[in-house]
Amino acid sequence: MKYIEGGVTAAKGFIASGIHCGIRKNQSKKDLAMIKSEVKASAAAVYTQNKVYGAPITVTRNNLADGYAQAVIVNSGNANTCNSDGVEKAEMMCDIASAAMVVDKSDIIVASTGVIGMSLDIKPIADHAEQLASQLSADGGNDAAHAIMTTDTVPKECAVQFELGGKPVTLGACCKGSGMIHPNMATMLCFMTTDCKISPVMLQKALSDTVKDTFNMISVDGDTSTNDMVCIMANGFAENDEITEIGADYETFKTALKEVSVKLSRLIAGDGEGAQRLLECTVTGAPDEITAKKIAKSIICSSLVKTAMFGADANWGRILCAIGYTEGDFSIETIDVFLSSCKGKVKVCENGFGIEFSEDKAKEILLESEIVLTVCMNQGDFDATAWGCDLTYDYVKINGDYRT
Amino acid sequence: MKYIEGGVTAAKGFIASGIHCGIRKNQSKKDLAMIKSEVKASAAAVYTQNKVYGAPITVTRNNLADGYAQAVIVNSGNANTCNSDGVEKAEMMCDIASAAMVVDKSDIIVASTGVIGMSLDIKPIADHAEQLASQLSADGGNDAAHAIMTTDTVPKECAVQFELGGKPVTLGACCKGSGMIHPNMATMLCFMTTDCKISPVMLQKALSDTVKDTFNMISVDGDTSTNDMVCIMANGFAENDEITEIGADYETFKTALKEVSVKLSRLIAGDGEGAQRLLECTVTGAPDEITAKKIAKSIICSSLVKTAMFGADANWGRILCAIGYTEGDFSIETIDVFLSSCKGKVKVCENGFGIEFSEDKAKEILLESEIVLTVCMNQGDFDATAWGCDLTYDYVKINGDYRT
Repeated sequence: MKYIEGGVTAAKGFIASGIHCGIRKNQSKKDLAMIKSEVKASAAAVYTQNKVYGAPITVTRNNLADGYAQAVIVNSGNANTCNSDGVEKAEMMCDIASAAMVVDKSDIIVASTGVIGMSLDIKPIADHAEQLASQLSADGGNDAAHAIMTTDTVPKECAVQFELGGKPVTLGACCKGSGMIHPNMATMLCFMTTDCKISPVMLQKALSDTVKDTFNMISVDGDTSTNDMVCIMANGFAENDEITEIGADYETFKTALKEVSVKLSRLIAGDGEGAQRLLECTVTGAPDEITAKKIAKSIICSSLVKTAMFGADANWGRILCAIGYTEGDFSIETIDVFLSSCKGKVKVCENGFGIEFSEDKAKEILLESEIVLTVCMNQGDFDATAWGCDLTYDYVKINGDYRT
Repeated sequence: MKYIEGGVTAAKGFIASGIHCGIRKNQSKKDLAMIKSEVKASAAAVYTQNKVYGAPITVTRNNLADGYAQAVIVNSGNANTCNSDGVEKAEMMCDIASAAMVVDKSDIIVASTGVIGMSLDIKPIADHAEQLASQLSADGGNDAAHAIMTTDTVPKECAVQFELGGKPVTLGACCKGSGMIHPNMATMLCFMTTDCKISPVMLQKALSDTVKDTFNMISVDGDTSTNDMVCIMANGFAENDEITEIGADYETFKTALKEVSVKLSRLIAGDGEGAQRLLECTVTGAPDEITAKKIAKSIICSSLVKTAMFGADANWGRILCAIGYTEGDFSIETIDVFLSSCKGKVKVCENGFGIEFSEDKAKEILLESEIVLTVCMNQGDFDATAWGCDLTYDYVKINGDYRT
């Protein structure tokens, strides 16, 4: 497997486009995108578990019920959520996308992201759909990645290539963060495309399994979004033998899917609202997987750990504190904690107690932009990794007045 | 029942003192306090449920096992937690307090608050114990309230008076916040004293019941402290008929205890690290009490709600979002949301959807220092209230480099 250039249009038979249509006030920011497969594709998705969910989730879930889709329409600037006319508007977006891209309405994935509770103005979308569709191209992936950004500071996309039965297969994706990020059995917005030939059932299984260890293990601010969705379309253009059951090909595909998902998860966490540092927390030697995951997430969700990391302060007591309030049956007495980055590694806690370490070395390590917090529990064979970011002045600034 | 002047020494037969002994570097900050009852008192406590807990918790729990105590020694500046010699140091504090106050060692409540994981220097405590004991007086409650402060900006104390069988009874208290505040079946540090005559069993029951609806319903930053403790001593000096069972006197006492606990909970939340506003979230019409409490806490814990309140931004979608990710069996379709303060009240959401409201009026309301978020679920008869604060630049500043 190797990384290649491109994102959501890297795989054969996918085209995309993105423009500013006028939902967002800032004319320099794209706010509407389309992604299209040349043919109808196997499709799968995982959605937010928030009881308050956007109207686009309702409509997409319905359209994907048969396991197939062909195109995506997505806007930023307005989440189309908590509006009494939300489903109606999401259906209108499907109608518009269907006509512009000449795709069955029931094969449209519709998504929205942005402010909650403001009625979505459909006119800018209707007015620009033809133009957007006419710009669809294999070079349009980056435009689409830009158009779904909200408070993200950089577009997020990647692609990998691998072989199945001697045939090259490509998997690409784009996604967006960067606030209200605390996925719960789902994620923020992520669109994946592949030319792999795979049945809808196996595609859904691969996606659901992968999300648990990747997008569901990130948190920026502990708030599970109302509009989380990760979806994937597989159009079969790679002409590999169709994956219809678990086996070597399925595992190869899933490895690629996990690679891309981890990459995007790190991009989202590292570009969390206001973030200066990506935090990766790895828990090893846990008595069970759930405990490993819960502890890793407790740590990256702790406001006190996050602010300490912002200050490059090796205040490891806060890591112990976050471990301590995690639910689960485990003990503190065998836990060691390490802080590391490209500048080295220091042990700061052994068997649950503080030990002497060089504060200067710790500071040097923590001033880097990617920090790893390692918790060795020494109580079993289970590991987990979670990703988050530091809590900074800019997080407060960005969210103190988001709507204006 | 009426509020009276004073705090932890308001009740008859209690004396206290507080000084700077040298645990904290800043000489203007008191860091050691004593509280003493003239006689051995019924005593009860509730402790943190964090698996990582301070050595003082271990020692105090042991000393209170018989239901009696007579004195408190407490320091700020160092939590005496996660140190391999923690229990030894906490025992030494008891020895020192026992000798200085002439109280049985097994009747000492010991507590520490401050940074985690640094060995506690016992010398300043030993050197100043006699002086501190000699200053114990009925006027010393405020000094003790100062000595337990960490990042608190104001000391927190209050007292009430009520009657039992014609006898005036007084209940007073002091407590401290203001970070690592997310009590879980316990609380931060709070010391309560009363001259009420009540058995240890009934005192513990009253305290445990009250904490659930008061201190356990506040959150500053979602981090459950390792050193949470609320304790109460009742010395019987009011000479009321001893409360030994549930009845009218017990209920009167519990009402006073709840009044004081709510007052202190609001003080802690309102003085949360960096806070500019106290947030009170009341959920009404819930299908059950647990759901009411969980929703109220979800809202006051949401970083996005907290930053919106900092910005006085009526971004009610974030309140809906936080309701939506709360565990429980309830629906969104009947939920109304109101924002209010002394400047008035606006409905911002009806039946789960946004409605038109005056942004100017909402801004005027939200610029006040005490904000009430009301969620009417219209799904049952259960209510709950939680208290928190906004998330500000100063929270990040305070916690970015706490140890230096």
